[in-house]
Amino acid sequence: MANDLWQPAVIDPAQAGGWAVAHCHQRFLCDSNGVLFPREWLKARLPAALAEHGIGYFQGQLVFVLELAEPIDGLLPGSQWKGLRQFLLEGDISTYRMLGYAAQIGTWARQHRFCGSCGGPLQPLSGERAMLCPACGLHLYPRLSPSIIVLISRGEELLLARSPRFAAGLYSTLAGFVEPGESIEECVRREVREEVALEVDNLRYIASQNWPFPHSLMLGFHADYAGGEIVPQAEEIEDARWFRVDDLPQLPPHGAISRYLIELYLARRSGVAEPRLPG
Amino acid sequence: MANDLWQPAVIDPAQAGGWAVAHCHQRFLCDSNGVLFPREWLKARLPAALAEHGIGYFQGQLVFVLELAEPIDGLLPGSQWKGLRQFLLEGDISTYRMLGYAAQIGTWARQHRFCGSCGGPLQPLSGERAMLCPACGLHLYPRLSPSIIVLISRGEELLLARSPRFAAGLYSTLAGFVEPGESIEECVRREVREEVALEVDNLRYIASQNWPFPHSLMLGFHADYAGGEIVPQAEEIEDARWFRVDDLPQLPPHGAISRYLIELYLARRSGVAEPRLPG
Repeated sequence: MANDLWQPAVIDPAQAGGWAVAHCHQRFLCDSNGVLFPREWLKARLPAALAEHGIGYFQGQLVFVLELAEPIDGLLPGSQWKGLRQFLLEGDISTYRMLGYAAQIGTWARQHRFCGSCGGPLQPLSGERAMLCPACGLHLYPRLSPSIIVLISRGEELLLARSPRFAAGLYSTLAGFVEPGESIEECVRREVREEVALEVDNLRYIASQNWPFPHSLMLGFHADYAGGEIVPQAEEIEDARWFRVDDLPQLPPHGAISRYLIELYLARRSGVAEPRLPG
Repeated sequence: MANDLWQPAVIDPAQAGGWAVAHCHQRFLCDSNGVLFPREWLKARLPAALAEHGIGYFQGQLVFVLELAEPIDGLLPGSQWKGLRQFLLEGDISTYRMLGYAAQIGTWARQHRFCGSCGGPLQPLSGERAMLCPACGLHLYPRLSPSIIVLISRGEELLLARSPRFAAGLYSTLAGFVEPGESIEECVRREVREEVALEVDNLRYIASQNWPFPHSLMLGFHADYAGGEIVPQAEEIEDARWFRVDDLPQLPPHGAISRYLIELYLARRSGVAEPRLPG
């Protein structure tokens, strides 16, 4: 959705001034003023960053990300490291979008310092968000991992499942990464077979969402149950079952596309106003 | 679409026997019998491969890809290197799908021999299509580059454009890579603004297609023109214009999702049978 407060852009770090966020492993340095620090002031107080990228404009002001090797505590009086997911839960969408972008660029910069093909050091490519290997010529761009996520319905029931990694009691829609060679519709059918051994039909694409944990592109579907009995995939799916629409378990937080797919379906069933997918 | 002749799978190269294809830079070694050679026989005749991956089953038989450093000619009597695109044009969809997958895994293996984070050598992770850095713990999976592709219509007209890289006279739909932080709908609007300076509305997701040149995941949309005058993007768009549906220029080949988006729209307008998107 259009968002005027935060606007991503490729900005040369040779440009002086501006604001900076400090990122490390999905966490950001913040103090009582928030996550944006005067850039030169912050750099004078932090260890040298692994990488520095100009990432865009927040309220019209230049913003850079400093990718730090380690999340050292006590760097600045009154500062702490705060997780990206917390910013999503707090609901300041402009800040969350800026930090989600910063986290993806920072993580990409951390993981693209050496050429995967020849092992040589990479250099930033001027004017683009890309790294170049001067030795072998390979260009590397920020990585996205496309993933499907699908709500399956059967009459008055929804199929929801939980991973062993989820908080106790929480159930969500099925999801999985797209593999080389397949369309996203093929991926939906494959993932549903692998995770719960069911067949689905009438796939309808609903919406998409960037999910910066760490760099997923979520492609959301609704599908109808078409056959089979639930067999949860070993290790991946702790439990999967049909829930009546009027008796749902604890769901993922507002803001996640999984929650949106469920609430959109419920809203359309009962003819009430449709929810909005943030970010 | 389901395809029984070719079935991708993760197979340990320690397993003996099977068939092999030899890949280098989007080209495959082939002779009068095709692209599949007895694996041990082929390995005895080729220089050591950069990487070897078990990629699946063709007609129930094990298939491996050998990723070669260089496309050396004269390796086998009567053999030649043939481009992946040629296999798409020839229309043997099972072979094309196998080779498209092989090309993606081979290219990924070539470009993931060293850790981007610390520069150390990577090792295959047993039982998964993944590389692991023993030094720093980074895991690396095959990369896909999600891209949008969009057919824009205005009454009796379609917006088509050409890149300076296209064959003379050929026009296609607009396309571009999804960037971190955006949904695919946001990407459609951004790419249309960047490439032709138009606004679009009523975005409808139509279909998706894996496009192994070298690793795109194409997400196809139809959108309605909503405003603006065409301004082609410098260097990227050589020409863009409105074509009447009964007077279209040369289009991309059958099999490409760009062609499918156009033909599907024409078929629905005139109420004839809808085309099928291969692969």
